[in-house]
Amino acid sequence: MSGGHLRIGLDIGGTKTDAVLIDDEDAIRHRVRSATSWGPAGVIDTAVRAVEELTELSGAGAADIVSVGVGVPGQVGEGGAVRHAVNLGVEDLDLATILRERTGHPVVVENDVKAAALGAARILGATGSFVYLNLGTGVAAGHVLDGRLHRGRRGTAGEVGHIAVDPEGHACRCGQRGCIETLAGGAYVAERWGQVSDYPVLAVFDAADRGDELALRIRDGIARGVACALTVLTLSVDPDRLVVGGGVTALGERLVEAVRLELRTSAAGSDFLASLDLASGIDLLPRALPAAAFGAAIVADREGADVH
Amino acid sequence: MSGGHLRIGLDIGGTKTDAVLIDDEDAIRHRVRSATSWGPAGVIDTAVRAVEELTELSGAGAADIVSVGVGVPGQVGEGGAVRHAVNLGVEDLDLATILRERTGHPVVVENDVKAAALGAARILGATGSFVYLNLGTGVAAGHVLDGRLHRGRRGTAGEVGHIAVDPEGHACRCGQRGCIETLAGGAYVAERWGQVSDYPVLAVFDAADRGDELALRIRDGIARGVACALTVLTLSVDPDRLVVGGGVTALGERLVEAVRLELRTSAAGSDFLASLDLASGIDLLPRALPAAAFGAAIVADREGADVH
Repeated sequence: MSGGHLRIGLDIGGTKTDAVLIDDEDAIRHRVRSATSWGPAGVIDTAVRAVEELTELSGAGAADIVSVGVGVPGQVGEGGAVRHAVNLGVEDLDLATILRERTGHPVVVENDVKAAALGAARILGATGSFVYLNLGTGVAAGHVLDGRLHRGRRGTAGEVGHIAVDPEGHACRCGQRGCIETLAGGAYVAERWGQVSDYPVLAVFDAADRGDELALRIRDGIARGVACALTVLTLSVDPDRLVVGGGVTALGERLVEAVRLELRTSAAGSDFLASLDLASGIDLLPRALPAAAFGAAIVADREGADVH
Repeated sequence: MSGGHLRIGLDIGGTKTDAVLIDDEDAIRHRVRSATSWGPAGVIDTAVRAVEELTELSGAGAADIVSVGVGVPGQVGEGGAVRHAVNLGVEDLDLATILRERTGHPVVVENDVKAAALGAARILGATGSFVYLNLGTGVAAGHVLDGRLHRGRRGTAGEVGHIAVDPEGHACRCGQRGCIETLAGGAYVAERWGQVSDYPVLAVFDAADRGDELALRIRDGIARGVACALTVLTLSVDPDRLVVGGGVTALGERLVEAVRLELRTSAAGSDFLASLDLASGIDLLPRALPAAAFGAAIVADREGADVH
């Protein structure tokens, strides 16, 4: 198999890297997953190996690969440099330039939540305004307007995790207090739970089901944080469609139920909130969809993009 | 003078009605202001008189007036019906239908903040994403995307006044506690100030300057509410341009200074907030611009609008 306009998309996460190769009709031809190696050199090696593996699987020549898009959990500068990707062990890395040199392909780097928003919008066929709310280590959303990423003037569109909703709330690493992320972000949940666990949020929900008081408080906080994020997005952007994804949504219906309860409790005291009817419309992105990797693959298509 | 595509726009406020007549090049040919009469019959009479006065001033025939747009401080239903416009003494009024019958012109009704957002965007030549934050009796924003109003799926885009930022805050008429509007909304300021005044927000600022403790607390709350609204809009929409208007902005630089101080204090404790640099970019809409009336006049141009 060969020919055509093949694009590769990588979603480099703190523990795993998801990679897809898509054809000129946006169909996913191949998907590979691997463990992410730590630090700048590890991230680059992980990315190079994924590109090589997908190319080999496709049977295509290097010339058929028109672009490589990469989603990373961190800030992405103009030239595709990655900053403050703490979960990758990367403080500052000129990922686009190095990956272009190592693979020979044009490379575009994007924040992983923004890539996932773009990918989810395309996969779901969303039109008009679309928001993807990611519940992972942190809490952030991505906007897509008529199929194009809306980053905003400062690039902070969708950074709802750092909206402060309680002056007496927990201290946030951003320097504020009571940010939504301190309630529902996976890293804060793990920190407050304190026990070693591969899936702290799951452990919290399990312990809460057994009546553990700390776990109940943390679970209520998660529900409140997610409810706040949904409310804020509805009272600011009010997108045509809002979809929730990210690691924390592996809890599935257990998370949805907890958030729904929180939203219904708030709505019981407020006709205004009741009129929004947020509780009945919580829409989880199916976990099997490689939204971020797919989104990374199509991010390079963007009009006027600098492809490095 | 006659001929062409003349449009009328009315901004019906709680005390005053601002009305403009614009030509086919969007130039304002005439502007008249009048007191708003109370209640459903009063609102209709006010609107009819304004239309008649502008028509007479223009010297045009009734056939040259292609549309009348009306901005009102309340909820606007699909067919141009107005609900819960408490400042007009209107609970439910089929304004579009009645005004069409009384004037013979097609009529479109829009929420006044949304009309002002559209008008401000056009007057300022805003491209991309534009947000107008209105500080009036209530607190609300309007979005304009590429020259078109973005209302959102539920019509709640920009309703940032009812984002709750303090669980221990003041009770809001919406049923929540600690809404941004309970800090910075003119009606709440007047209620907490308690003294009879034509311009309670001005009275509060004057008393605060004299060291009055209640006034200082209220003024700090106003600054915090506006700072919260600006922060929320930046961390959700992050528009290309954000402009602040509304009655409370009559305070001008005194308001801007108070908000700037609040933003700088928060930023001093948070590198993240500091990086947004909101304090240096507070952009007030010039008070003399008839943004809402002009916006009402062009709201009828919207693609696919139902003109009644």
